[in-house]
Amino acid sequence: MALDHVKAILFDTFGTITDWRSSIAAEGVRVAAAKGVKDFNGDAFARAWRAGYRPGMVPVIAGTRSWTPVDVIHRERLDVILPDFGLGMLNEAERRHLNEAWHRINPWPDSVPGLRRLKAKYLIAPLSNGSLVLLSSMAKRAGIPWDFVVSSDMHKAYKRDPKVYQNAVALLGFKPEEVMMGAAHNDDLEAARKEGLRTGYINRPYEYGIDQNRDFDATSNWDVICTSVEELADVMGV
Amino acid sequence: MALDHVKAILFDTFGTITDWRSSIAAEGVRVAAAKGVKDFNGDAFARAWRAGYRPGMVPVIAGTRSWTPVDVIHRERLDVILPDFGLGMLNEAERRHLNEAWHRINPWPDSVPGLRRLKAKYLIAPLSNGSLVLLSSMAKRAGIPWDFVVSSDMHKAYKRDPKVYQNAVALLGFKPEEVMMGAAHNDDLEAARKEGLRTGYINRPYEYGIDQNRDFDATSNWDVICTSVEELADVMGV
Repeated sequence: MALDHVKAILFDTFGTITDWRSSIAAEGVRVAAAKGVKDFNGDAFARAWRAGYRPGMVPVIAGTRSWTPVDVIHRERLDVILPDFGLGMLNEAERRHLNEAWHRINPWPDSVPGLRRLKAKYLIAPLSNGSLVLLSSMAKRAGIPWDFVVSSDMHKAYKRDPKVYQNAVALLGFKPEEVMMGAAHNDDLEAARKEGLRTGYINRPYEYGIDQNRDFDATSNWDVICTSVEELADVMGV
Repeated sequence: MALDHVKAILFDTFGTITDWRSSIAAEGVRVAAAKGVKDFNGDAFARAWRAGYRPGMVPVIAGTRSWTPVDVIHRERLDVILPDFGLGMLNEAERRHLNEAWHRINPWPDSVPGLRRLKAKYLIAPLSNGSLVLLSSMAKRAGIPWDFVVSSDMHKAYKRDPKVYQNAVALLGFKPEEVMMGAAHNDDLEAARKEGLRTGYINRPYEYGIDQNRDFDATSNWDVICTSVEELADVMGV
């Protein structure tokens, strides 16, 4: 599949560019320590919180729940799990601050160096279920050099809704084959390919830790299959 | 007017952040020289091209013409004026390249240093009539450190349509008074203030050169009145 025509590369962020699990675990550990909670398992906390993410979007994608920002989905899940981790005592301000931990997650070590290289030749942006403020705050803090941001609240739709990919291509005014989706999730690439985009698989087999039950490897013949954003930059010739 | 609550500053780009006149003049001069056109007046060329900009948007804002991207408006005007400047011989590829001169315009000298400072505390973005590709290409080339981009094609509306300001505030999920509009054009700030935004006037009395017939000075009590983006950063305490 020819990649010569690619002008823009859009990236999944949670898991592909950023390591949410270790970042959220560390935030949980800090809060638990401040509250004197013993035997707090930060990794389990991060995984439990994340476990509500896709289920929280299902009714929105299905149209049975009206548009709900990702910060609200995060917060609803947080309120459910806090008592299980001994943190039921957190007040409103503390919960709000902790919920914004998703605005402060760190990139994988290869992400920023790889994106800097790709930016020299391609327009690069997130195509994420995050909100505009979440994605731009995260990028600012971590030095992720996006050219622009495509967020879920921009089109009020979550991946893998076909509209997300269609709208991004239309916004750019490019042909679908001039846009590549980069993701660590096979189903994200499957949805992008259905809309005619090029596909780059970046393997992140440790994203979910002991909860990971898929995406250990590419499950299709994606246009590029690699293990880091730096390797994607190698393949794309920058 | 309290500015303590401002979280994001959105900027007009053409004229406020970038000096389109000298940039377009230089591109014209290069093309004219390559074609052996004598007595080519680059400044007049830039002003003549720009003179079609606001009139080109009028029917779109009025709703009598369907959504028309700014690249198309630029191109239509270019085709009109090229013969007047001895450049009627340009072929399609040459016209297309010249039209993208608007993607390559340079910032005023104070813009990037000022924006770098503001970025440390505020989310910063263009709120421009430019397209997403135009604005992000321009920023990449010039090193403008936007956190994200709000483009006219995102909401299919041009300033001073109230929807432009309303949609930007809604996209951020902020209150209107948490968002500041920064612009060199009094009517842009007037439209922003009507929607509840804070206003920052940056004086650019040389934007249009000898064609300038307004915006020599602030015509209202804007929240901030200054003469450069660096001075805006001073006032905003960064």
